[in-house]
Amino acid sequence: MTIPSAGALLGPVGVVGLGLIGGSIGLDLRDQGVDVRALVHREATAGRALERGLADVVSTDPAVLAPCRLVVLALPLDRLLEPAPALLAALPAGAVITDVGSVKAPVLERWQPLHPRFVASHPMAGTSQAGVEAGVRGLFVDRPWVATPGPTTDPEALDQVRALALALGARWFCCAAAAHDRAVALISHLPVLVSGALLQAADQGSGAAAASGEPELPQLVRALASSGFADTTRVGGGNPELGTLMARHNREALLAALGHYRQALDALESDVRAGAWPRLQAELERCQQLRPEFL
Amino acid sequence: MTIPSAGALLGPVGVVGLGLIGGSIGLDLRDQGVDVRALVHREATAGRALERGLADVVSTDPAVLAPCRLVVLALPLDRLLEPAPALLAALPAGAVITDVGSVKAPVLERWQPLHPRFVASHPMAGTSQAGVEAGVRGLFVDRPWVATPGPTTDPEALDQVRALALALGARWFCCAAAAHDRAVALISHLPVLVSGALLQAADQGSGAAAASGEPELPQLVRALASSGFADTTRVGGGNPELGTLMARHNREALLAALGHYRQALDALESDVRAGAWPRLQAELERCQQLRPEFL
Repeated sequence: MTIPSAGALLGPVGVVGLGLIGGSIGLDLRDQGVDVRALVHREATAGRALERGLADVVSTDPAVLAPCRLVVLALPLDRLLEPAPALLAALPAGAVITDVGSVKAPVLERWQPLHPRFVASHPMAGTSQAGVEAGVRGLFVDRPWVATPGPTTDPEALDQVRALALALGARWFCCAAAAHDRAVALISHLPVLVSGALLQAADQGSGAAAASGEPELPQLVRALASSGFADTTRVGGGNPELGTLMARHNREALLAALGHYRQALDALESDVRAGAWPRLQAELERCQQLRPEFL
Repeated sequence: MTIPSAGALLGPVGVVGLGLIGGSIGLDLRDQGVDVRALVHREATAGRALERGLADVVSTDPAVLAPCRLVVLALPLDRLLEPAPALLAALPAGAVITDVGSVKAPVLERWQPLHPRFVASHPMAGTSQAGVEAGVRGLFVDRPWVATPGPTTDPEALDQVRALALALGARWFCCAAAAHDRAVALISHLPVLVSGALLQAADQGSGAAAASGEPELPQLVRALASSGFADTTRVGGGNPELGTLMARHNREALLAALGHYRQALDALESDVRAGAWPRLQAELERCQQLRPEFL
């Protein structure tokens, strides 16, 4: 794909927070000649961010954002939902403000009244890294970037966030915040719990066996676990703070997703219990057919 | 690691079935100068197996096994548990017989009385491929190969299967059949159901949303699903026949594993429901600590 140049369009761009997402945005925009001005929490981060070239100017003083026409709030969800007063005061009234939070309804609800040109958005890119060392070039290429405008979202502001997403090579999506949150509950937040519970079951199941006459089980499951187990448990072994924030701020949708999951698992278990092998095989065939639709 | 040479030790080796496991064994043993004689079900397979060099002699006549001192039954679990009378009659009385089945207690129970030198074993290697085209060189290198001797297993026969496993570069394990089956229920068979149910939940959860006023959800979940979802659902989208065979022949251990899984998921869900965020985070921290133990 051709990546549109961001230079002319966006003017000085502010980035609040230079972790994985903020740092990656900074690197890519600077490569395209955009003037990037970053606000960070700590002096040490500022120094290291400048060394890494994540922004042209990095400061702990919110005034650094003054000349920006677009500001990306690349903050963890909890700090985004309880923004510092000094940050709020420093956001230019005429600038477009967007965020990168992975749950959208509470962000939209909180920020819509705070700034007339706020656009809620979610670039869906990640690695297991975090912090000022995490930012990498090209993180957003071919990844979804979902905006969730509300009834009062400024259409011209939405266009500018779209231009940013396309400049970074992302695929642009627009949907209602509730739809976004329901979707990520099913495909992103539910998998964390499903996968984490598998780690705990392997630990607890083998521990229980050890307690009742099979002392080798805990070591055996650890020695024999293969790539299939590693893949299925990857997201369950991820960042606990992040997993908790997602669950906390997308609680209702996650509980609904867990309900659907429980129904599906119950059906498979009852096939096993009843020895209904043709039915179990039909269910697993359905799973095999479904998966390519999600890849 | 240094891979011991199999040539002197093993003499002619018979392989029954030239799918992924049998074909891979044949390729590696022939590379080491071992005479490999294979029994297959269909003439077409025999021709293709010879073209691929999976064995020196390939036949649909069980008499091909007559000169073998070691025979590997590389058959699907159902055919292994109901062996053809012609195969049984053709197994040399003095040869060591082993299998590659992924559940061990029923195999040991069935085969121990059938042949005095039977050794139940399970090379834990796999790809998503099956059939005569699937065999590859080096499949077993650094993979576990688990033997599950019973009280009457011939120790010298066990040694010969160990020599085979080491010749193929595998890591050798020995444990009780029940312990093996409990372990693979937790780390291999449970993940198939856990992962398959996630595919169904994403499908059904988004379908339910579409039916109640969010028509875009089914497309949205499919468009936004990322590498995390892909990893978590990989084994659930695998071979349905294989998944069903595992469940069928390891039913009790799988149901026990499902019980442990349900407890773990229930605890996570109740944290979300109660808004017990520090407790949820502690649970996810435990998951994060556990995972490296299984890698």
